[in-house]
Amino acid sequence: MSRIGFVGLGVMGTPMAAHLAAAGHEVSGFDLNADALAKLEAAGGRAAKDVADAVSGAEFVITMLPNHPQVEQVVLAPGGVLDAVAPGTLLADMSTIRPETSIEVAKAGAAKGIRVLDAPVSGGQAGAEQAALSIMVGGDEADFAAAKPVFDTLGKTVVHVGPHGAGQVVKAANQLVVGGIYGLVAEAIVLLEASGVDAGTGLDVLAGGLAGSRILELKRKSMVERKFEPGFRIDLHHKDMGIALAAARQSDVALPLTGLVAQLVAAGRAMGYGSLDHSALLKVVEELSGRSSQEV
Amino acid sequence: MSRIGFVGLGVMGTPMAAHLAAAGHEVSGFDLNADALAKLEAAGGRAAKDVADAVSGAEFVITMLPNHPQVEQVVLAPGGVLDAVAPGTLLADMSTIRPETSIEVAKAGAAKGIRVLDAPVSGGQAGAEQAALSIMVGGDEADFAAAKPVFDTLGKTVVHVGPHGAGQVVKAANQLVVGGIYGLVAEAIVLLEASGVDAGTGLDVLAGGLAGSRILELKRKSMVERKFEPGFRIDLHHKDMGIALAAARQSDVALPLTGLVAQLVAAGRAMGYGSLDHSALLKVVEELSGRSSQEV
Amino acid sequence: MSRIGFVGLGVMGTPMAAHLAAAGHEVSGFDLNADALAKLEAAGGRAAKDVADAVSGAEFVITMLPNHPQVEQVVLAPGGVLDAVAPGTLLADMSTIRPETSIEVAKAGAAKGIRVLDAPVSGGQAGAEQAALSIMVGGDEADFAAAKPVFDTLGKTVVHVGPHGAGQVVKAANQLVVGGIYGLVAEAIVLLEASGVDAGTGLDVLAGGLAGSRILELKRKSMVERKFEPGFRIDLHHKDMGIALAAARQSDVALPLTGLVAQLVAAGRAMGYGSLDHSALLKVVEELSGRSSQEV
Amino acid sequence: MSRIGFVGLGVMGTPMAAHLAAAGHEVSGFDLNADALAKLEAAGGRAAKDVADAVSGAEFVITMLPNHPQVEQVVLAPGGVLDAVAPGTLLADMSTIRPETSIEVAKAGAAKGIRVLDAPVSGGQAGAEQAALSIMVGGDEADFAAAKPVFDTLGKTVVHVGPHGAGQVVKAANQLVVGGIYGLVAEAIVLLEASGVDAGTGLDVLAGGLAGSRILELKRKSMVERKFEPGFRIDLHHKDMGIALAAARQSDVALPLTGLVAQLVAAGRAMGYGSLDHSALLKVVEELSGRSSQEV
Repeated sequence: MSRIGFVGLGVMGTPMAAHLAAAGHEVSGFDLNADALAKLEAAGGRAAKDVADAVSGAEFVITMLPNHPQVEQVVLAPGGVLDAVAPGTLLADMSTIRPETSIEVAKAGAAKGIRVLDAPVSGGQAGAEQAALSIMVGGDEADFAAAKPVFDTLGKTVVHVGPHGAGQVVKAANQLVVGGIYGLVAEAIVLLEASGVDAGTGLDVLAGGLAGSRILELKRKSMVERKFEPGFRIDLHHKDMGIALAAARQSDVALPLTGLVAQLVAAGRAMGYGSLDHSALLKVVEELSGRSSQEV
Repeated sequence: MSRIGFVGLGVMGTPMAAHLAAAGHEVSGFDLNADALAKLEAAGGRAAKDVADAVSGAEFVITMLPNHPQVEQVVLAPGGVLDAVAPGTLLADMSTIRPETSIEVAKAGAAKGIRVLDAPVSGGQAGAEQAALSIMVGGDEADFAAAKPVFDTLGKTVVHVGPHGAGQVVKAANQLVVGGIYGLVAEAIVLLEASGVDAGTGLDVLAGGLAGSRILELKRKSMVERKFEPGFRIDLHHKDMGIALAAARQSDVALPLTGLVAQLVAAGRAMGYGSLDHSALLKVVEELSGRSSQEV
Repeated sequence: MSRIGFVGLGVMGTPMAAHLAAAGHEVSGFDLNADALAKLEAAGGRAAKDVADAVSGAEFVITMLPNHPQVEQVVLAPGGVLDAVAPGTLLADMSTIRPETSIEVAKAGAAKGIRVLDAPVSGGQAGAEQAALSIMVGGDEADFAAAKPVFDTLGKTVVHVGPHGAGQVVKAANQLVVGGIYGLVAEAIVLLEASGVDAGTGLDVLAGGLAGSRILELKRKSMVERKFEPGFRIDLHHKDMGIALAAARQSDVALPLTGLVAQLVAAGRAMGYGSLDHSALLKVVEELSGRSSQEV
Repeated sequence: MSRIGFVGLGVMGTPMAAHLAAAGHEVSGFDLNADALAKLEAAGGRAAKDVADAVSGAEFVITMLPNHPQVEQVVLAPGGVLDAVAPGTLLADMSTIRPETSIEVAKAGAAKGIRVLDAPVSGGQAGAEQAALSIMVGGDEADFAAAKPVFDTLGKTVVHVGPHGAGQVVKAANQLVVGGIYGLVAEAIVLLEASGVDAGTGLDVLAGGLAGSRILELKRKSMVERKFEPGFRIDLHHKDMGIALAAARQSDVALPLTGLVAQLVAAGRAMGYGSLDHSALLKVVEELSGRSSQEV
């Protein structure tokens, strides 16, 4: 068992830290939110008084933060993780951020002898609570091997996908495909309904053929019924589309569909649906066709 | 068993007519292509000398034609199917055409007491040869019930999806989703590769989560290896995207992703990839990023 | 002076026919609308009882119709213009239709010795009333020369742009650029206003530099004030975007921006703004950002 | 006359600083490039040894830098402009950056009693050399009034467009419209040429009507002739489209056309045309249609 420092105890980080404590690790955590610290203590962890307190002396550090500015602040800034840990420590940043920052963090870590992995996850709050996350890991093979037992406590699919930043790129690719399929299914529903076809029946046919997808399987009923409780919020998907576009810019590629999907997701947020499930992209497509959504 | 008239013996129609003959129906077929007629005779059908000859006296007529102008010519024009068959005949147009024309054909049929169904299929040449098509049927419930035994000889999934034209709308919805997912997967591959991530590994992760789809399941390996033997040709998908946009126009809806996917598919054709599989949309996305495709 | 047959006396055709009569031509016109016929008589023309009556004996025939099905009906169908006029007659179809149909009409005319030009116009109702249209003419040089004096009675800019269909292609290119610039200006206004910048001031700067356009010059004030009286209706621009996409398909090119602009214009119509000026594309872009428009 | 500190002596900054020196100001400048410093001395300015040396004691400071990270480094970082100048100094950041950073700089300045304006320019290298820039200024009215005489030395159109960041928003709006019009004109050219219409003749017609724009006026000839010497490079426009999308994200609006234009410009860069004029967006649209560009 290891001494683990954990920074960022939000809806994802809190259950993740609890699983680690339950597995016998000595978990020392920090978050600005006092309630989160109390939950950590209730789960058997130690509430640290700041970032340095949480991570100093740890063999393994996990950061789970909203976006790259928070990672820069917590990890890179003076007094942050890289200043507080000893050489040889393994840092897994499990935040979803742009690959560019992950690479920057890895370089800054390497300069101090700290081993860094980017390890964003998919599976959402439910995945975190059920220790069933998918974890996409970028970094050195040996560091991945060393971290794998810890990741296995948190997720069911743990894959080393490439060098530093690669975990973030795979997560970005995942999110652009997910956002795009929601958009396409939304357009299919609007076309079916406006043409007088029962959308449920039509989507059943699509789900059984080459148009089939996990999203059609899991979400077609709730979409047709206009039930949009999250799940994964549009606000978060909006952030992730920004990361996908930043990754494309960084790698010098042009992604036309991604560019348009990003604007449709932005519209969802701008229209006031940011706290609904990302399947609410349907509401954007509906309003574009002058059809307002009704809860069934 | 029925007397069936079959017009349009192309790569789809030929095996379909053969299955009907093998099932014991008396099949009389016509096509402008003499080879196709020879194949029909070899399969136990009768080669008719023209459309009227193929369909007169039939209880059930199937048309399987390239696009709406051919349907208008074969079915609606003077001397066509509607002129040659008796009231009460059941006509299933299994061509993929715009819903507008299907509705027009149904009205013209109704005026003469002829029962019409639109019944486009998915599953491609392989589906036709293996009698494993998905058949999406629009029209009256009673006519569907009457035609179902014949459809069951041709396909595995036979669904009544709504009134006249509904079969075409569901097919259009299917094709816009399929085209869009190919585009999204192509963008994911280009992003992964340009970022130095192994695309095969990355897509394996996507395939196992919310981004998963039938296309990722069946085609990710061939796409990463740049193997684009059809399958379903880009030229045909280009036609089908035109139908999807026509259906949207007819139903007065705006489908922004569909509008862009249609142009990317058009680019595939314009770039000279029309006879490749629709997964070759990857080549379009690659060239947009200045990356030219290589056969592996 | 000539004997001119004129079919299609709508908001464009009526003032055009009146100008021709005023210039001394013997104008015989037809339209299904009796009021339009009365106006023609008031303007000095003759109200014909049908298409054949309007055009038989004419040296010059003008058709000004809503879209290609009407042109097919009036010109190509049995009893239509091509059946009713003598060889050598000059037919100028001034309707805005897809180039494909213009080429078909020219071929059908040539088969009967009738000289055909496609001659769509821009400038709208005001341009028709003031005899200030721009006329884009496709067809043979000699036929253009023969028709030019008549066109000069109707417009200020009369240009021979190429072979049969070329007039329609230039009109399509014009409409895709116009629709696109409205969309871009709409996005600029939404960005400026949402950022707390006075849109009028901001657009003044844009109008004076490389972003300047006729649309910014003529319409920026009315757009910022949300005054959308037509002008040129969104419904008509929606028809024209369909023509632009059909022209692209015919010429086997991919036009990604045009594909998206077409869907935004379709959204304008679907949202119920079809009878507003095309500058009301601003309302679509606003609603996408959750900002509803207010008349000032 | 004032003591002016000038940081950033690139292709824009060098002639701007020279105009200020020629107008009698005491200009002290810095750049990492020694050649640029030599040119400044030749123009009558003083070559400073670092940022602090350039700006300390100045009444007016101008920064003209590539993008926001450089502005953060030069202005905000320890030892930067805000540390080196006295309260009351006026700082005009004339770089084109995202509005968010301009607002951040203004706040940081206000905390130290330093008056900040964002004042991006359009008009390019030629505008800088001829002192004919358009300057879009965000910030307080009084500070604008104080800075105006200096701006008038550099530009012909100097406009106060709103509060801090407003200058950048107007610049972003300008660039999205400019990029979009290039894309639309490119699509028009490809459609015309592929349809067998002479593009020069067609664009002449467009330029004279509602589709007319400064870009058609200035660039249609060079675009049709495929002459793409910059002018304003695609690489720079790519940076600016990133700023437009960041501004949209900051103001919570959805800009679908801008999202797609950004990807087409990114394609121009990815295809290797980054150092060509932005009118080379035509080459992207051509390759999408399988048509490769030829120098005429």
